[in-house]
Amino acid sequence: MTNNGLAEPRRTLTLRDVSEASGVSEMTVSRVLRNRGDVSPATREKVLEAAKALGYVPNKIAGALASQRVNLVAVIIPSLSNLVFPDVLSGISAELEETGLQPVFGVTNYSAEKEEAVLYEMLSWRPTGVIVAGLEHTDAARAMLENAGIPIVEIMDVDGTPVDSVVGISHKRAGLEMARAIVKEGYRKIGFLGTKMPYDHRARKRLEGFEAGLAEAGIELTDREFYSGGSALQKGREMTEAILARNPDLDFIYYSNDMIGAGGLLYCLEKGIDVPGQIGLAGFNGVDLLEGLPRKLATMDACRHEIGRRAAAIVAGRSETGLVGGERVELTPVLEPGDTIHRK
Amino acid sequence: MTNNGLAEPRRTLTLRDVSEASGVSEMTVSRVLRNRGDVSPATREKVLEAAKALGYVPNKIAGALASQRVNLVAVIIPSLSNLVFPDVLSGISAELEETGLQPVFGVTNYSAEKEEAVLYEMLSWRPTGVIVAGLEHTDAARAMLENAGIPIVEIMDVDGTPVDSVVGISHKRAGLEMARAIVKEGYRKIGFLGTKMPYDHRARKRLEGFEAGLAEAGIELTDREFYSGGSALQKGREMTEAILARNPDLDFIYYSNDMIGAGGLLYCLEKGIDVPGQIGLAGFNGVDLLEGLPRKLATMDACRHEIGRRAAAIVAGRSETGLVGGERVELTPVLEPGDTIHRK
Repeated sequence: MTNNGLAEPRRTLTLRDVSEASGVSEMTVSRVLRNRGDVSPATREKVLEAAKALGYVPNKIAGALASQRVNLVAVIIPSLSNLVFPDVLSGISAELEETGLQPVFGVTNYSAEKEEAVLYEMLSWRPTGVIVAGLEHTDAARAMLENAGIPIVEIMDVDGTPVDSVVGISHKRAGLEMARAIVKEGYRKIGFLGTKMPYDHRARKRLEGFEAGLAEAGIELTDREFYSGGSALQKGREMTEAILARNPDLDFIYYSNDMIGAGGLLYCLEKGIDVPGQIGLAGFNGVDLLEGLPRKLATMDACRHEIGRRAAAIVAGRSETGLVGGERVELTPVLEPGDTIHRK
Repeated sequence: MTNNGLAEPRRTLTLRDVSEASGVSEMTVSRVLRNRGDVSPATREKVLEAAKALGYVPNKIAGALASQRVNLVAVIIPSLSNLVFPDVLSGISAELEETGLQPVFGVTNYSAEKEEAVLYEMLSWRPTGVIVAGLEHTDAARAMLENAGIPIVEIMDVDGTPVDSVVGISHKRAGLEMARAIVKEGYRKIGFLGTKMPYDHRARKRLEGFEAGLAEAGIELTDREFYSGGSALQKGREMTEAILARNPDLDFIYYSNDMIGAGGLLYCLEKGIDVPGQIGLAGFNGVDLLEGLPRKLATMDACRHEIGRRAAAIVAGRSETGLVGGERVELTPVLEPGDTIHRK
């Protein structure tokens, strides 16, 4: 059950597909999926497994409307407390404003299993399209997306194979370019502080790209440290203190997001450490609210609002390219050197 | 068309209600509302006005499902870029997780007209309930809410008359208690910096309460300044500089939110101003991400996640009080004095 986007026409799966795949009659399949009538546990199991493998999702909009779509766009993101996603949502919201489409949202807490469950529920509403963060899904979630018969747009990240359309940036390239920029400025003893892997695939890819960029100059990462949960600003302070205690000669720290970077910056300034002379710092995301810090942290704009806008335009059929389905939009994050990378 | 919550049973409006109110036949009303057939402009106008005054919203889920509700909860908030609302949404999301209900969201950009339009659209989906920020609405929006025949929960604010249920804090009381706390500590020359009124009703109410609290001690606000748009942290710096230039003897500044307060704090620290000795500072919201600033800003926790959770519980029929409809939940924000209010 593969799909290469543009080439293969897709249709919504029916009871018959589940019947054929499981070797169980359509009527029995229907009974199992509606949870009604007497069906043996073995048959039930067979039907549910086939449905899951196919990516079949029962339609919650009953009978008369079975073939209709509703004017809702399913939006699935990892978290609302992360500063990144409200910006994406506001891009989606702005773009859908005049279309009559409304976003419905689900949150996965960075769990692939939760994503699968949320997706199942939302697809049962027969939305007009799906916007989902990231390219990594469970097999069952990917099967559902491949067979939903509607525009699917994976967002944030372009490093991987999309189900249908994709709008995002290359996080590998973002990491790579940051590495090249700081190597060029003469930094050599370099640490990485970030969110805990493997929850955050995009942070992992930035680190991979960053290490590849250092490797071009024959440099290996001196040290790294990861965290999960808690106040990012505070964690940034604590991790910076810890990594500098272990490696007093570090001359650069790359942070997986701006908030921990800002915490690190505040820590260094309080300790009287010369930034960027003694140590350079950079974050990621281009978070607006950090304008107004004592010094401007180097960062890369992650194009969040624009990602939301372009993804919503594809679902709404107003894509700038005129394509529908199988579209690839790679945006380019721009390095903003701020005041925390010195210039030779 | 009034409604006092608990007392009056509510039902969904029908074409007949619009027919009776307008004196136009049901068939013609139906034609007008579906935008079909030949109807004179005068009759059309009469029908549309009656429908708007009643709060009638056509059902977009057609025919066979006309009497059904869908498992969606309409959530209407002013903004996603404001740090306050993602926390409310995550409370709603967490509470609805196991209920089979999904939040659908709409954004009003702090405009009452936009709110009316978003509400109209979302009610046409026959959601299970509505969660809407604030108690201030246009007459037409209020009529729609009163006649939706579903649980309506107004959130954030309890200072006013709700349509049905309300979950929030008293912003007047929050302002009042902040004034009493700082007067008690001896502050006398006091300024207010805030978001631009009248867009932000809750900030306006906090200011009213704050002034009432100062008045108890015979104190009048020395100066005030408002802003809209831009980076809050940066605005906080700029406004603090401006108000101190005009009033060098100011001994306290109350900010309408933590982000501008944090900007003010950073400004004062950089200028070597003794906080809280020479000047005390306080914000509002209890924004977590500010943990890790050089000094902890005094604030009040606005109970955002809990507001979302309790509102969603009412819509889902799992309210802790056992009531359905006409429920009032007033949460109490707690003053967190931080390091920016001195103690006598």
